[in-house]
Parts: sequence; C-alpha cells; structure tokens
Amino acid sequence: MRSFTILFFFATTVAVALASTSDDVEAISQVVEIHRLRPQTGSAGHRIPQLDCLSWRLAVETNNLRDWKLVPSACEDYVGHYMLGKQYRRDCEYVAKVAIEYAKGLNLGGDGKDVWVFDIDETTLSNLPYFARCDVAFGAIPYNNTKFNEWMGEGKLPAIPSILGVYKTVLSLGIKPVFITGARENFRQSRIANLKKAGYSNWLKLVLKGENDHGSAVEYKSSKRTELVKAGYRIVGNMGDQWSDLIGENPGARTFKVPDPMYYIG
Amino acid sequence: MRSFTILFFFATTVAVALASTSDDVEAISQVVEIHRLRPQTGSAGHRIPQLDCLSWRLAVETNNLRDWKLVPSACEDYVGHYMLGKQYRRDCEYVAKVAIEYAKGLNLGGDGKDVWVFDIDETTLSNLPYFARCDVAFGAIPYNNTKFNEWMGEGKLPAIPSILGVYKTVLSLGIKPVFITGARENFRQSRIANLKKAGYSNWLKLVLKGENDHGSAVEYKSSKRTELVKAGYRIVGNMGDQWSDLIGENPGARTFKVPDPMYYIG
Repeated sequence: MRSFTILFFFATTVAVALASTSDDVEAISQVVEIHRLRPQTGSAGHRIPQLDCLSWRLAVETNNLRDWKLVPSACEDYVGHYMLGKQYRRDCEYVAKVAIEYAKGLNLGGDGKDVWVFDIDETTLSNLPYFARCDVAFGAIPYNNTKFNEWMGEGKLPAIPSILGVYKTVLSLGIKPVFITGARENFRQSRIANLKKAGYSNWLKLVLKGENDHGSAVEYKSSKRTELVKAGYRIVGNMGDQWSDLIGENPGARTFKVPDPMYYIG
Repeated sequence: MRSFTILFFFATTVAVALASTSDDVEAISQVVEIHRLRPQTGSAGHRIPQLDCLSWRLAVETNNLRDWKLVPSACEDYVGHYMLGKQYRRDCEYVAKVAIEYAKGLNLGGDGKDVWVFDIDETTLSNLPYFARCDVAFGAIPYNNTKFNEWMGEGKLPAIPSILGVYKTVLSLGIKPVFITGARENFRQSRIANLKKAGYSNWLKLVLKGENDHGSAVEYKSSKRTELVKAGYRIVGNMGDQWSDLIGENPGARTFKVPDPMYYIG
C-alpha cells in the first residue's frame, strides 16, 4: 500500500510537471477540443438550465413531443455525441434483438402472405454521414431540401448494421420485406442501387411517394399499408424511426421504433 | 499557478494521509456502500455484457419491448438509481411541460365536453415508496398482489408533482379530468381519499375496474374511453405510464407517455 502511495505521488508530480510547460497546456486544450461532443447535460455532464437533453430525447422517442422543427441548439452537442457514440448503436442493437426474438417466435402462415414493413431513412439506411456535416449539425440547422436530395441521390447511405440483421432474419424465416419510404418516385433508381449496395437485395415491394400521394406521412404510410392488407398480406412487423411510420391504419401486429433524435416527420 | 500547484500537492498529501488510517478506509467503504444505486451501465458506469440498461429502458418506453415480467436483475440498480435520482423527475417534468403547452394551445369547445384522461398509478400518484422497498426492488422481484394491495389500501401514495401541475392547468382551462385506473372497485374509497390527500380533489369521473370488466388492460381502458366518447365527450388529452393506457380505441387527440421502467401492464 505504501509503495502504491509513493508511486501515486510520483506519477502526479510528473503529470503536473509535464502539463505546466506551455506546449503541453496547448496539447491538453486540444484534447478538450476534440471531445467537444461530450454531453453537457444529464448524468454525464452539467445541466443546461430549462432543458435536459436526455428528457427531450425521451419525449421525442415516446411521441410526447410532436411537430418539432429543429434539434434545440442547446442539445446539438448532446445529439451529436449520442449519434456518433456507442449509445445509439446499442439502442439500435437492442431494438433489433427484440425484433429478431419476436420474428423467430411467430407462427407464420407459410402461404407467402406474411410481410414485414421497413421504413428506409434512419431505419434500414443511415443518413448519419450527412447529418454529421457542419452545415447540418445533427438536425440543429434548418433542413435544406436541395442539399439533402443531392446527398440522397448519390446513394451512399450505409446500412444500420443491426437492422440489416433484422432484415436477414426476416428473409430467412420466409417473411417478405416491404420498403415504404417517404422519398419521391424519381429517386427509385438511386434507392434501389443504394439498398443493394448496403446489403438489402430482396423485397416484395419498394414503395416510393408518387405524384398522387398527398397528405401527411401518417396518411401516406397508412394508405400503402392498407393496400397491402387489402391484397391479402399480413403485416407481422413494422419498423420505423418516426412514429408516423407506426401509427394510423393497419400498423401491423407489432411495431418497432428505431431511435432518431435528429428530425421529426408528422 | 505555482502556489496553486503547491496547494494541490499539500491537499493531496493530507487526503491520502487521512485515508490511510484504518478507520477512514472503513468510512470510505461506507460511502461506496450508500452509493450502491450508482448505475453500473451506460454512460455513467461499466457496461453489463449483453444488456445495456439504457437501451432496455428506451425499448420499454417506446413499446418495443412488451409482455416483460420483471426488471432484469442486471438493471435493478440502474432502475433504482433512475427512479430515486434526478432523471426520472426531470423526465416527468418535461412530459408535464409539453402537455401543459399543448393544453394551453387548445381551442376548447366551451360546452363542458372536453375531458382529459389520467391513469392513476405511476401517472398521477406514485408507488415509488413501495417499489423502493427491499422486498420489491424496483420491480426486479416478482409482483406480490397481497403486499401491493395492502400498500395501495393504505392510501399513502404521494402525487407526482409535475403531473399534479398538468392536472391543475387542465382544471383551470375548463377541461374536465377523468381518472381511469386498473385498480378494482373495492378500492374506491381509499383511492378517493388518496387522490384528495395528494391534491387531486376534482373530477368528472373516477373509473375503477368492476366485476364485469374482463380482458386486457388495452380492452378495459379502450371500452371506458369509448363510453366517454359515446356520451358526447371529447378526449383532448390522455396521460398514462403504460402504453396500454394510450393505444386501442379512442386514445384521445394527443397521448402522453409518463416514464415507468418498473413494471409492464399489457
């Protein structure tokens, strides 16, 4: 114990001595700089008065907060840290785990009529490389349709790995995937190329928003699901990052909310 | 700077010297002991392999995880820390803030037909004093109906302060509160006494589960809300800690999920 104490003193002396030269003070401040996405609120940091970003995110994920336009500027760092850090990945992994267990436990019809509805953006594919850009700031800067469409058209979205796992399980069980996306029909070719590149190569239907699809996201997604049901399909599962994917008519036997604190679609 | 460094060394020396006597080592271990609710997972602690309690709680709050019977034993400490700590209060406060803003923005009928549905347990009143007991362990020990009914019958549940604030706002706006609880009709008198004692003294209806109310919580709550709608009432808001309070028929114009990682009612 005594030798440990002496070692501790020695180590402290060296550390303080090193830090007291001006070069190293700068080095330390740079270390702080690259950790600027460290959360400034909640259990791991200081509280921002009047806005707890953990509570804000919970309100978003539970559909308590609706029709919000922007990530609050006070939560930009928090959301960036969450999305780039481990917690977002773990949260996605856990949704996937629960969905896979559910899918494996299903009594399927065996008649090819069981389908699983997947949303695309922030569900099967990720726009995180776009949202991490300094001119997007994880959703804390107003949405720019031109920039976003340019990015989407490039077809470079990576898969969300854990949800790709759900897709593979669903396929292996004989459940047919149906993609329903809010992207416009003119993106069909780039979406197909992007899905295939990311590992999603098989589906019953890929539904994009057509000329005649008006109304809210809830209405659009509901009407497309209702078409499936009228055609005799059974929606055994439904995954999306927006509550507008999961509520309305024919939501499916079970819904799975994938995390997304970056934007709201009503 | 130099004098600060010297002071730092001096303080460290004193602290280490104090801690190195056997009495103080014991004192320090006691400090650790009373902090045993410190989370062992997520951003503030070590990760428990195969189970991230933050992800588990998110899956519970988003209705991704259903029909679970017990808080996982690996998450008992985490849930205890969350419920007794600041985050649960802040999460409730934020739901309340969003609900109050929504209520104040409503265009009300002014005909006395606007109602707000409140669940009771873990929504308006809190069983936390019961769940913090060592024989309940925040829901990590199997539910004991006899013990729970004994506690509920005593009528000592405190209000959740922020939700009491929603109730007061709702009343002040002329919206009529309706309480719908899964507790049995034979608890009516103790529930009335408890609600009044906690500050809820006014309501249009207090609905308890009667002899003829069978089926799931979703069915029971749906049927009671449907009765309200058939009687000409408009459900402008609906608050509950369980998704079974908020889904099914006539959920209301807007739902508010109050946090509850301690138990599941389907």
